[in-house]
Formats: sequence, C-alpha cells, structure tokens
Amino acid sequence: MTELGVVRRKIKRAERAAVDELGRYGVATVHEAMGRLGLMKPYMRPIYPGARVSGTAVTVLLHPGDNWMMHVAAEQIQDGDIVVAALTSECTDGYFGDLLATSFMARGAKGLVIDAGVRDVKALTEMGFPVWSKCVSAKGTVKATLGSVNIPVVCAGAEVNPGDAIVADDDGIVVAPAEAASKIAKAAAAREANEGDKRAKLAAGVLGLDMYKMREPLEKAGLKYID
Amino acid sequence: MTELGVVRRKIKRAERAAVDELGRYGVATVHEAMGRLGLMKPYMRPIYPGARVSGTAVTVLLHPGDNWMMHVAAEQIQDGDIVVAALTSECTDGYFGDLLATSFMARGAKGLVIDAGVRDVKALTEMGFPVWSKCVSAKGTVKATLGSVNIPVVCAGAEVNPGDAIVADDDGIVVAPAEAASKIAKAAAAREANEGDKRAKLAAGVLGLDMYKMREPLEKAGLKYID
Amino acid sequence: MTELGVVRRKIKRAERAAVDELGRYGVATVHEAMGRLGLMKPYMRPIYPGARVSGTAVTVLLHPGDNWMMHVAAEQIQDGDIVVAALTSECTDGYFGDLLATSFMARGAKGLVIDAGVRDVKALTEMGFPVWSKCVSAKGTVKATLGSVNIPVVCAGAEVNPGDAIVADDDGIVVAPAEAASKIAKAAAAREANEGDKRAKLAAGVLGLDMYKMREPLEKAGLKYID
Amino acid sequence: MTELGVVRRKIKRAERAAVDELGRYGVATVHEAMGRLGLMKPYMRPIYPGARVSGTAVTVLLHPGDNWMMHVAAEQIQDGDIVVAALTSECTDGYFGDLLATSFMARGAKGLVIDAGVRDVKALTEMGFPVWSKCVSAKGTVKATLGSVNIPVVCAGAEVNPGDAIVADDDGIVVAPAEAASKIAKAAAAREANEGDKRAKLAAGVLGLDMYKMREPLEKAGLKYID
Amino acid sequence: MTELGVVRRKIKRAERAAVDELGRYGVATVHEAMGRLGLMKPYMRPIYPGARVSGTAVTVLLHPGDNWMMHVAAEQIQDGDIVVAALTSECTDGYFGDLLATSFMARGAKGLVIDAGVRDVKALTEMGFPVWSKCVSAKGTVKATLGSVNIPVVCAGAEVNPGDAIVADDDGIVVAPAEAASKIAKAAAAREANEGDKRAKLAAGVLGLDMYKMREPLEKAGLKYID
Amino acid sequence: MTELGVVRRKIKRAERAAVDELGRYGVATVHEAMGRLGLMKPYMRPIYPGARVSGTAVTVLLHPGDNWMMHVAAEQIQDGDIVVAALTSECTDGYFGDLLATSFMARGAKGLVIDAGVRDVKALTEMGFPVWSKCVSAKGTVKATLGSVNIPVVCAGAEVNPGDAIVADDDGIVVAPAEAASKIAKAAAAREANEGDKRAKLAAGVLGLDMYKMREPLEKAGLKYID
Repeated sequence: MTELGVVRRKIKRAERAAVDELGRYGVATVHEAMGRLGLMKPYMRPIYPGARVSGTAVTVLLHPGDNWMMHVAAEQIQDGDIVVAALTSECTDGYFGDLLATSFMARGAKGLVIDAGVRDVKALTEMGFPVWSKCVSAKGTVKATLGSVNIPVVCAGAEVNPGDAIVADDDGIVVAPAEAASKIAKAAAAREANEGDKRAKLAAGVLGLDMYKMREPLEKAGLKYID
Repeated sequence: MTELGVVRRKIKRAERAAVDELGRYGVATVHEAMGRLGLMKPYMRPIYPGARVSGTAVTVLLHPGDNWMMHVAAEQIQDGDIVVAALTSECTDGYFGDLLATSFMARGAKGLVIDAGVRDVKALTEMGFPVWSKCVSAKGTVKATLGSVNIPVVCAGAEVNPGDAIVADDDGIVVAPAEAASKIAKAAAAREANEGDKRAKLAAGVLGLDMYKMREPLEKAGLKYID
Repeated sequence: MTELGVVRRKIKRAERAAVDELGRYGVATVHEAMGRLGLMKPYMRPIYPGARVSGTAVTVLLHPGDNWMMHVAAEQIQDGDIVVAALTSECTDGYFGDLLATSFMARGAKGLVIDAGVRDVKALTEMGFPVWSKCVSAKGTVKATLGSVNIPVVCAGAEVNPGDAIVADDDGIVVAPAEAASKIAKAAAAREANEGDKRAKLAAGVLGLDMYKMREPLEKAGLKYID
Repeated sequence: MTELGVVRRKIKRAERAAVDELGRYGVATVHEAMGRLGLMKPYMRPIYPGARVSGTAVTVLLHPGDNWMMHVAAEQIQDGDIVVAALTSECTDGYFGDLLATSFMARGAKGLVIDAGVRDVKALTEMGFPVWSKCVSAKGTVKATLGSVNIPVVCAGAEVNPGDAIVADDDGIVVAPAEAASKIAKAAAAREANEGDKRAKLAAGVLGLDMYKMREPLEKAGLKYID
Repeated sequence: MTELGVVRRKIKRAERAAVDELGRYGVATVHEAMGRLGLMKPYMRPIYPGARVSGTAVTVLLHPGDNWMMHVAAEQIQDGDIVVAALTSECTDGYFGDLLATSFMARGAKGLVIDAGVRDVKALTEMGFPVWSKCVSAKGTVKATLGSVNIPVVCAGAEVNPGDAIVADDDGIVVAPAEAASKIAKAAAAREANEGDKRAKLAAGVLGLDMYKMREPLEKAGLKYID
Repeated sequence: MTELGVVRRKIKRAERAAVDELGRYGVATVHEAMGRLGLMKPYMRPIYPGARVSGTAVTVLLHPGDNWMMHVAAEQIQDGDIVVAALTSECTDGYFGDLLATSFMARGAKGLVIDAGVRDVKALTEMGFPVWSKCVSAKGTVKATLGSVNIPVVCAGAEVNPGDAIVADDDGIVVAPAEAASKIAKAAAAREANEGDKRAKLAAGVLGLDMYKMREPLEKAGLKYID
C-alpha cells in the first residue's frame, strides 16, 4: 500500500548497460519490445524537440500545489537517474524550474518526467536539461505537506517503480521494469535487426502488402477492390 | 452509405494545376475563398513547423488501435497525393512511423493527415515528410480488422472525398472539393490580389477602420467613444 | 458593470520604466513577486518559442466568431502596448493574422494575448510579432457585433484592466495591476538578487534541503527515511 | 460543395415506417446493423435521461454565437422531423431554449440534436422536448450572419444529409442514410431476433465463451490460463 | 491588487429584494438583461437537477489541494449568501462535503459555487444543499496555506466581487454586480413581460420568422430558397 | 512486468467482512482512511446516481476497440466481485451492454468499473447493474486481440491488483489493497466515529474555526481581518 512521508534510500536500479541500450532504440521500439505496454499517456510532451534520454527512475509523489518533496528527491539522485514525479491529484502548477534543474544536474540526473507543469523552460532548454511534462506553467508551489520518495507511483497512466528503466524521446515515455530491462533490450535489438532491410525495400517501392504478405489475409477477411 | 472492407482504385482527382495553385495561397486564404468552410478542427497540428503542402486525397477509414488499412492505402497512392486517415472512433495510438513514411514517400505521397496519433516524429522530421495529427504517441497498433480506402470520410470534423484537394500548413488543413478546386483557386487568387496593397497601407499606419470604411457602420451599430 | 459598445480612449498606463523592468525578470519571477497571483491559465501558449515582451494592456472584448473590435482596438494602441483580447464565450476561431499584425506593429504594439485562435502563424513568426493564444486556427471571423475596447476583462482566467502591465514569455502571461507595477518590480528585483548565489551553490552540489534549511521542518512533519 | 445562405425546401425524407422501426431498436442496435458506423461522438448527451426518438433530419449550419438560421429552419420542419444543427466552428453558446422549442414542437419536431449549447433545460424537460447537445449554456446568441438549411453537414463527427433517419437515446445519436433506412431496419430486426434467447442463456449462467464458441479461437490466439 | 491572507468582514451586499427578483427570472433571462455578460463557463454543473437559487456572494480564494479558507469563509456567511470559491490554479479536489454543508446551512447559506470539486454529493442532495462545481471528487484537501475571503475573484471565467448577486440554476451561474442588481432586475422584468405572449403565438404555429419580422433582413442578407 | 494473453484463475481476494464494511463508509471516508490515496480520476462517473457498491476486483486489460477479454473475465467472476477494466490506450467505445451485464450478474458481479465507454445505459439502469465509466457510447467493439485477466492494471490513474477491495459511489471509486482492507476498515471506522457529534455541533452553529481550533494557527500564519 502506497505510503506518505517515506523516503526509500536504497533502491535496486536497472542494470546500466541495459538502460543505455534501451536508450539507443528509443521509445517506440522499446514499447513494442514490451508487447506494446509500459507507455505513459500522450499528453506528456518534451519541453524542446530532439532530446532522447534513458535512465533509472527515482520516483516522487507530490501533492497538488506543493513541491516540497522535489528537494527531498534531489538527495536521492545518483548519476544516470531520471526523476519521475507523480501527483496525488491533477495539477498544472510549475513544480520545477532552473534552480532545481541546476541541483538535479549537479547530482547526475539525466532528465525529469512530471505529470504536472514546469517553468523556466527557456532556461532549461539552454541548459540542455530535458523535461517531459503535462504542461508549462509559471505557477509557483508551496512547501507544506509530505509526499514520498522512491515508492511505487502511477505517472501519466503508467506504473513506475523506483529503479525502473525510463526511456523518453519525442515520441513519449516508456517504463521498463528494472528486472526485465536486459530481456527487453534483447527483444528490442531483435526487432531493430531487420529494420534497415525493410526500410530499403520500402524505399525501393516494395509495398508492405507484399513484404508482410498481407494480401491473402486481407482477401480472407473479405476485402473487395472496386474500379 | 459508408461501407467497410472496400478499396476504390479509380478515383477522380482534383486537377493538378489547381491543387498546386491552392498550395501557393495557403490554408487561411483557401478557406476564406470557400466561404469560410472546409477546415478541419484546430486540434490537428503539424509535427514540425514550416511545412506547406497541397495534394489530392487518398482517404482511409481506420478502426481504433488498428492500422492494417494504412498498408492497403499505400498501394493506392499516386504522385502528388496526400493520405487522409479518419477513425471510426477516437483513438490516440501511433498509426504511422518512419517505415510507412518511407513507403508512402516512395509512392509519391506529399504528406499525411491523420485524426489520431503518429510516432517516430524525429525521423519523420529529418526525412521531411510532413504529418498533421491529433497527437504524437509511440503506441503501436494491430492489423486485424478491415476498414476501407477511398470512400468518403469525416476527418477531424471535415468531410473528405477521395480526390479532393487538400492544403495543409502551420494554420491547419482545408479540404477543397475536387470538382470545385479550379473555381476556388480563382477566388483565392482574387482575394490575394490586393493583399500586398492593403499590407503596405497598414504598414504605413493607415487604420483598418479607414481602409475598410468601418467608422460609419460602427457608429450606426451604436459604438460610443469615452474619454 | 462591463458594458458593450464602448471604447475608452484615455487610460492610465503602468509606468514605462516599471513595465520594462518587469520584462527583464520574466513571468515566473513577476508572478512570485505578486504573491503567486495574476497568471493566465497554462493553455495559453506562444506561437513561437523564445519571445519575451512586456507592455501595457489595451483590452478588447470580442464575441465568438467576430473580430470587428480588433480594428477598433488598433486605433487605441500606443507605442509599448500589448493588446489583450478576451471573449464573451469560448471560441477557437482565428481572429488575427498578418494584416492585423502589420497594423498593430505600425501602431507600436509589442504583442498580442488572445483567449482564442490566431492564424498566419508562419508569417507572424517571420515578422517577429509574438502572439500568445489558446490555439492556432485558420477559421475567419465576421464583423457584425459590437464588443468593447479598454474595459476591464477576464482573459484566460485573469482579470485585466486597461493599462495594466503585461509580461509574457515561454512560461505564460502575468498581469500586474498598473498602480502596483513599480512595487512589484521592486519585489521582483529583491527576489532575483540572490538567485545567482543560490544557483552557484546548487551547481556545486549543495542540496536545497540544506540551503533552505528544510531538514528540520521535514523531520517535524514526520518524514521517515528507510534503507 | 457546402454553400452558405441557402435553404432547400424540398428534401427526400427517409420512409416513415423505416424511421419508426429504427426508433424501436435504439441507437446501439442500429449502429451495429450499419456495420458499426454512423454514430455521433460521445460528447453529445441528452439533457434528461430516458428519451428515445427517431425522425428525419432537417439540417442547419450555424455560425459561432449566431442562431439566426434556427428560425429559418423552423419553417422547414414537418411532422416527424428532428433538427440537426451543425456549427462552422466550435461554440458552447446556448442556441436554443423554451421559446424555440415551443415553435419546433408546434411544427411537429420530435427533438433537436445540436453540436453546441442549449438553455432553459428545466423548461425543456418539463415540456418533454428532448435535446442532445454538447453542453448546457445560458449564453445567448446574435442574429447577424447567414448559414444554411437542409444542406449536407458534419455534426459531432457524423455526416448528416437532409432527410436522413436519426435515432437518439441515452446511448447517443446514430444517422442512417435516407435511402438505406429500410435495409438497415431489416438488418437491425435480424440482429434483435435472437437477443432474447441469448439473454435467457446468459441469465441462466451460460458463458459468452461457450455461447459464442470463443474458447477455441482464444486458445489459438495463445491465451494461457495460470493457477 | 488581489491580496492573500485577508478576510474582509464588512461587504456591501446587493439589495435583498433585487436578488430575490433575479432568482425568479433565472440565469438565462438575467444574463440577457445584462447584455449577455456575467456568465460563468458552462463546465460548471449543478450536483443535482432542478435547483434555482439567488443570493449574495461571499467570495473565497483557495489554493490547489487546500480548503482551509472554507472554514474562514463560513464565519462570514449571513442569511441569504452564496459562497463563491475561486482557485489560484486549476484543481479537481473535493473541497466541500456534508460537514461543511451542515455548517454553511446553519449560517444561512443558500448554496455554493466552486471552481473545483465537491464530494458527499448524495448527502448534499438529500440535504437539499445545491452546489455548482467543476467536477465531483472524493479527494480530500489539506489545511496549510492562507488564501483570502471577500476579495474580488475570477471564478470559472467570471469576475465576482463580494456582495454581488449570484443566480444559479440548471442553465449555469450568472453574476450581477451588487450596485446594478436593481437595474438588472428591471431589465429582466421587461424582458419577461411579453414572453408569455410570444410563447402563445409560437405554440399556435406562428413562426419566429414572422413574429420577429426576420424575412426582410434575411432576404437583404442574401438568403436564397431552393426547391 | 505486465503480460498479455494471460488469465490468472486463483487470486487472493480481500476479506469479505472488510470489503462489506468499507462499502458502508463510502468512497470519501475510505480514501481519507488510506491517507488520501487510492482514488481513480474524477472523470469516472456512475451511469445513474445513488448506487454504492463494494466488492473484490477481477481485473481485465483491454485493447482499444476490442472487448474480447470481457467474455474471458466473465468466467473468473465470483459472487461479490467488481470487474475493473483498464485499457492499453485511451478509447471511448462502448465495451459493455445489457447482454454482458446479464452474464456478469448471473456470475455474481456487483458492478463494473471501466476506463472507457459503456452502452445500453437505460437497460443497465433498469436492471440495477451499476457501472462507473469514462463515457457513454453506443460504439461496438471487435473480438480480435488478446489482453489479460487478473493481472495488475492501472485504471483511471489508480493501480488495481486482482482481489483488491473496490468501493464505488456517487463520489467516485477508491481501491484498497487486499492485504490492507481490514486495517483500512478500522481506520475508516475510527474516522466516522465522531462524525455524528461534529455534524450536530456544526448544525447548531458552532464554527469549524472553533471546533477544529483553527483560529490560532490561522493567526500565526498571518491571517488579517479587515472591516
């Protein structure tokens, strides 16, 4: 049962090599390799285009309008982590700006995923600190109520456990369970192996209909061509 | 009556010259020339800024979570077409990525308009293949249920018939019926003819109030100035 | 009581020096200096990233689908103003494009904030005329019904009086009452004074927990660390 | 091509007997009989629960904030019609209240379907005049700009032609093309024929898994049971 | 300038007789009498149908997730007041339930209008205490941060000053400035005077086209009838 | 890691007595007793007012537009269960109607919670089978792709494990972990114990300010009263 007022200091992080490898494949491929699961909802968007990061999750549970726990989370960050911030109820406030980003970067964080708002986006862009958020808002927050750090959370519709592998890019964010990260990386590698070949064929004008042998199943399903 | 499981191979496309001309005027001007009609809803956004395309519609009707018909549609694409993908009910899944884009480009497609999600947006941007969509999502789709290709569809609130002229740019997407494309291009040309003149006057400080002779109708309507 | 059909010609604008200073601090800092008040809602977004402007509000109240009053507002613009356009009910139409922008710029406007749609965004971007809006839409409007200019309005959830100081940047839009602009600028200056110092400390790895002396209050609130 | 400023007086209405029969089956059954097509979007809701009506469409195209054409449409209503009101762009205003309802009822209208707002909902409920709308809003409208009556429209995502059969109940609204109404009624009848039998079996504890013979295809698809 | 941490004890309430009279006319009529202004946004809905109340506003400004000020507001309630609760940023939490309702009723409150969530809606319905809210949510709130009572607020898009007349019914909520309540009541009375006559005519089959003499202006505007 | 194509037949259900007791307290009280956690998002609404149920979760994971697994789930229902249906991506289709409800009731289900659409709501209301859903939609679904039954899911923002205690009423839905149900029931009982006393005091005009001893902390926080 989710608890408030708790900070777990020792978490089991997904293996670094697997996390790095997942980052090379990107969100779409990783989520396919997981059986089309593990995605956060598409309202989560990067504050600037082009970033792709992978890392291990430090989770934080926040209350609406209150970012106190972000400072508590900062201390738990290790090199290669991505902070994943969930909310106890929906809020658009700007929980994070350039000062916290400076602190997170100094601790080794590779990015932030937050199911709420973020501010100072111009400065964050210039600093090259990528954030995926629900919205951009200048609205400041108070520091009054305890949440938790490194507990299981639901962020933007996806379950995230501390230490899980997070991959985020222009297509969104995917969560790979820590214990399955290596297996998923293998599945993703297999999936990518023949992509180059497929791309070359399609570029040459071969149709997916033929390459994937879809004509027969389509006909069986009853597809009719009319002139 | 809209039918499922049907592919129409022969469609009457809007005349190429008219379609090209409409593309030069852009969405706002074309929609004005149509009497302020024919626009898709403003939730449809380009995946990168700056693109403007015009082309003839190859339509496809898709089920939620199922992109099978996109492969069927690919075969019907001719040089200068824009694929317009409608849904039988709302869905945010990523129906289209870099492999399908490679195929569409090889067939001569100039872009995609889809009332759902798209993925691999970084790759699509690098390829220069413009897509207007409801959202970006890495979520993959199955290939299990028949839709249709080249039937009349409603896409993002606009009726689209196969062969209609489509113009899309940073302002959105407009649909010009194939048979009226030339007439609309003429109306758009007339509308643009004196825009340069107007712009020059406004830049020189002339007010719209005077240029459009609005002072009298405003006074008649009862407008009062207070110091 | 809000009146329709009225144009107020003489308004008391916030002092220029204070407005300029607020612009230097940006939206997040100004709104904090106001006690975390005065922000418009976060659905308001700039049409291109990177702009920051400050100016004095010329307000206009518009009806859905009708931009007649934008032309009336143009005449009331003075150098350094920002037009703030509110709606009598929700509308996504494109009330403003490159022609009106040409006119507004010629009058000295520094930008537009509109709780509705805008079009010609590519041209506006090239002209460098910043707009914060609810959406982008090519949909044109009629000129048939009287609204008002320079009356108090509610725009995107914020009350705006003519002459108020407006600051807008990538984080959103904040409204500082004209009579309090100088006081707010002072509070913002005080807030910024030690930001550089804080940033340096955080960059050096000092935690907010220590810098803001949060450990004791967190412990008092009952925070528990678990290994 | 959709035209503004036009009223079509003679329209071909779906056959009365078929329309009545469709009403008996209800929205879910009719839409299934149409191949799962023809539905308006689920944001359209009845102003009170329990109503079910079927009728022939008198269509009207309205501008945001302007209900002038509703009065023009009133004259075209015949006994058994349902007015279907579409918008040229999104609007939440209250286009329709108890006075217009009194007029529509006197003309023989059985209901209203409007992709915008409605008001006086308490009075409408007491009068027993059912309305399906996007929202409830007291906001009044002007009478300034021409739309059209009895032209093809897109209402809440569905194409509606004048004379089409409309069925509306607590589940939503379905549009059956006038020329296909009888055929669809037959398909709906066939669909309903064995529903009673199915219901009895399911009530007796028979599983859909067995009744629909799903166990084999599920096993083939790879479903695994774990204890 | 809006201040936090302030409770104004003496406010000038709209005259009781005018407030009562406005309540008899209802939201749609009052808002028309105000020139179609003063409405809150249509996302505000009553928790049960059929209630209509009018009263004088006690305003309260709340932070997201924090209902402390509701208790402070309770003390300022006088017989015939309606509490109007605004938020410093968007929140869906349930700020109000049956205990607070018991307290508000004991103080003489006639209802609550809140731009956030409410809970215990079954109990509130049984108590007959009407609430208009953005949503229903069981989510509880903390009591940690100061807001204000009886300051000017923006609630659901409408400016509300303490003491203003509030009318709320199934169509929504309208705010009439305290000092103009009597004048608005007169305008509403005038508006209603001949409604009965109009209703009788329309019920008898007279068209609005004729009753409002619209045929000529429609023809002038270019309306064409086609057979 | 969440798996597709799996049905878990043996699950550990929360203790019946605790589940029944939680149902007596209702959603708001149970969620408070859990530390204000465990709630689904407020967009989930009951199809008719007044129902309150508690039961043990049979979970099902569905694909957009595909309700095949609902039939698989039916077989796993035991007396006193509530089916909790989650989606792999957002969908508004009507996954559930009166036939499935007949089957679920025959198996002993007490209700359905589904993060998608439902249809036949009039029939479901007459049958007294309560459903909490994202929307109402007549849109039918296919039976083509495997999901899973009785695996951990995220439904409307809340994590649900098979066997968890679910309480649903007019205020929403709360999820109590199976193993903590008894403890939560005790906490809820404690919370309710003195509610009657509080209610009596508040009804007698005692203020929450005094009953909860808030005056001192408010003064300390800086609250100022102005006449």
